[in-house]
Amino acid sequence: MSLLADLQPRLLLGPGPSPVSERILQAMARPTIGHLDSQFLELMDDIADRLRRVFGTDNPMTFPVSGTGSAALEAAMTNAVQPGDTVIVGVNGVFGMRLAEMARRQGATAVEIEAEWGRIVEPERIEAALRRHPNAAVVCVVVAETSTGVHQPMDEIGRLVAATDALLVADTVTALAGTPVEVDANHIDICYSGTQKCVGVPPGVAPITFSPKAMDRIAARPQPPHSWYLDVGLIAGYLGEERRYHHTAPINMLYALHEGLVEIEEEGLEARYERHRRVGDRLKSELVARGFCLYAQEGHRLPQLTSAVLPEGVEEGPLRRRLLDDFSIEVGGGLGAMKGKLWRIGLMGYGARDENVDRLLEAVDVVMG
Amino acid sequence: MSLLADLQPRLLLGPGPSPVSERILQAMARPTIGHLDSQFLELMDDIADRLRRVFGTDNPMTFPVSGTGSAALEAAMTNAVQPGDTVIVGVNGVFGMRLAEMARRQGATAVEIEAEWGRIVEPERIEAALRRHPNAAVVCVVVAETSTGVHQPMDEIGRLVAATDALLVADTVTALAGTPVEVDANHIDICYSGTQKCVGVPPGVAPITFSPKAMDRIAARPQPPHSWYLDVGLIAGYLGEERRYHHTAPINMLYALHEGLVEIEEEGLEARYERHRRVGDRLKSELVARGFCLYAQEGHRLPQLTSAVLPEGVEEGPLRRRLLDDFSIEVGGGLGAMKGKLWRIGLMGYGARDENVDRLLEAVDVVMG
Repeated sequence: MSLLADLQPRLLLGPGPSPVSERILQAMARPTIGHLDSQFLELMDDIADRLRRVFGTDNPMTFPVSGTGSAALEAAMTNAVQPGDTVIVGVNGVFGMRLAEMARRQGATAVEIEAEWGRIVEPERIEAALRRHPNAAVVCVVVAETSTGVHQPMDEIGRLVAATDALLVADTVTALAGTPVEVDANHIDICYSGTQKCVGVPPGVAPITFSPKAMDRIAARPQPPHSWYLDVGLIAGYLGEERRYHHTAPINMLYALHEGLVEIEEEGLEARYERHRRVGDRLKSELVARGFCLYAQEGHRLPQLTSAVLPEGVEEGPLRRRLLDDFSIEVGGGLGAMKGKLWRIGLMGYGARDENVDRLLEAVDVVMG
Repeated sequence: MSLLADLQPRLLLGPGPSPVSERILQAMARPTIGHLDSQFLELMDDIADRLRRVFGTDNPMTFPVSGTGSAALEAAMTNAVQPGDTVIVGVNGVFGMRLAEMARRQGATAVEIEAEWGRIVEPERIEAALRRHPNAAVVCVVVAETSTGVHQPMDEIGRLVAATDALLVADTVTALAGTPVEVDANHIDICYSGTQKCVGVPPGVAPITFSPKAMDRIAARPQPPHSWYLDVGLIAGYLGEERRYHHTAPINMLYALHEGLVEIEEEGLEARYERHRRVGDRLKSELVARGFCLYAQEGHRLPQLTSAVLPEGVEEGPLRRRLLDDFSIEVGGGLGAMKGKLWRIGLMGYGARDENVDRLLEAVDVVMG
C-alpha cells in the first residue's frame, strides 16, 4: 500500500523517537511467538538482566512496561501513590507537571516544588519540602527533563529521601543509556524510562524498576491501584515462578528491546555515555558559534538533548519546517511556555554520531542563510 | 545475539497471538519516523478510517490504543466508569471477570450477571438487571469470550441498552475481523479489540471506538479518569485538528496495524469472515470425530476459537507440550475453572487456513497415538 511504501525516511534529531539501527528493525520483524512460550519467558528474563545492568540496580522487579514512556510514568504513579497521600514533585518542565497531574489523579495532594524552566530543582528545596511534609509518601523528580534539556543531579536528593519513609520516583525517559542512571547508588525506588531515546529502539515498551522498599509499600496497600493493566503486583505473577497469564506482552517490540540491549552491551555503557557526551558537546559549541543561546543551566545540560534558543529575530517554525521538508531532518520545537522559542535537538542512541551533527549543521547553515 | 537468533518458530494455533504474515512483519521493520510528522499523522488518519470500516461504525473517535488488548479494556472502563457508578457486567468467563474487576477499581459497584462458563449471557438477564438497576451507568459484555470460545449475540442487548442512559461496552478482542462486529447497528458505545487475534498483527496496539453518546458522557465527567495515559479526552487533542502532543505513539506497531488493515480490505471482510467460518467448522467436526467434546454452547460457538474438552482419560498438559516440542505447534490450555480440562485452538487471521488444520490434525493424531 502506497501510504507506507511512500513514507519519506527522516533523520530523527528531535527529542525522540531517535534513529533505529537496521539490526534492531530486523530483530523486530522476526516471527511472533507466544507470550507463554518458554522461549519467550527466557527472553523476558534476559531482558530483565540486561535492564538491571543499564539501570544500575539489583532490583528483582525490573521489566518493560507494555506501553510507551508515559505508560511507565503512569505505572510508577498508580502503584506508588494512594488516595490521600502527599506527593512532593519537582516541577521544572512538562514532565514534572505530568507527574503532579498523575499524583492528583490517584487522589493524592501534589506539593509542587517549582523551579524556573531550564534550571534544576535545588536539592535543598526538596529537603525543605520534606521537612514541611514529614509524612510525604512519595517524592518525584525528572532526571532528564525532555522539555528543557536539563539534567537533574540525583545523589543528594537520593540521600535525603532514603532517610525518610518516602519513595523516590525518578523519570529517566531521556536519560537511560545516554547518561549514567545509578538507581541503587542514588537510592531511587521507582525508576522508569522509554526505549525511543538513548536506548535506540522504537517506542512501544518502557523499562521500569521497583526497589524492595517500593514493592513492600505496594504489597501493603489496603486498596489495589486504580490500574489493572499496570498493577505491578499482578505483573509480578506473570514474571515470577508462576508465569500466571496477565496480559499479552508486545512480543515483537520486546525482540527489538532485546536487540537494543545487546547493542548497548556490545558498545559498553561507558563508551556509550562518552559518545553521547562528545557529540553533544560538539553540537552545543557549534550552535553557540552560530548565535544560538543554550537554554539549560550551565553545568546541568543533558549531552543527548540540547535546547537552544534561536538567534534574535529568527522565527523558528518556518526554519524547522524547511529542515524537515528540504533536508528530511527532524528537530523538535519548544513545549509549553517555550513553544516557538527554542529548538530541542536530540543526539540519542544510534543518532549520536558526528556524521549526523555534520548533516544538521550543513542544513542549518543553508536555512539560516 | 543467539537468544533471538535461536528462537524456534511456532505455528500459533492458540488463543493468541496468531501467526503474522511476512508482509506485516516487514512493514513493521520500516524506518521509524516522528509521531508529530505530518506523514505519520496522515497514516494515523488512514488507520482510523480503516478501523471504522472493520468496526462497522461512523464514530469519529476511533483509534488504536498504545498498548495491548487489556490496555484497551482499561481505556474503555477508566473513561466510561465513574466512582459511585453501578456497572452491570455479563460474566461467563475470564474477561467478564476482568471487566467487573476494572469497574470496581474505578470505584464503581459491579453487578455481575453470571452465566455458566461455556454459555452465553441470556439477553433477558441483562434486561432484568437493567430493571433492577435503572440508574446503571454502564453495561459490559464480552462478544468473544476468549476463555471459553463463546460468541455472545449482541443485537438484542444493544437494543435494550440503547433504550436507557447506560453506555454499552463490548469486548471484541478475539472477534474483530474474524466475525462481524457491527458497532453502530448493535448500538455499542465503546468497543475495543486487540491486534494479535483475527486482525493478524503482533500484539502492542489495540483498536477502540467511542460513540458520540460515550464521548458526551465522558466530557461531562466532573473528575477526569484515574488514567492519564488512556484519557480519551486528552488523546482526542492529539488525534484532532490541534495535534497536541500527548504521548509518543508506538510508531512501528502502527505500521504493522496499517498493513494488516490493508490486507483485510484486500481480502474483503465478508470473504474473511467466510474463511474463518469454513476452517473453524472443519476443525470442530474433525475434533468431534476424534472424540473431543465441544465446550461452547451449540449455536454460539466462535468460528475462530474452538474450545474442546479432550477425550475421557486423556491428560491435556503432556499432549499439549508434545505438540509444542515435537511439532512446534502452540495450542492453548484452559483458563481459570477450565485449567487442565480443555484446549483452546485458534484459527485466527493469517492462521485461519486449511493447511494449518491439516498440520494440527496430523500432529494430534500422532500425540494421541
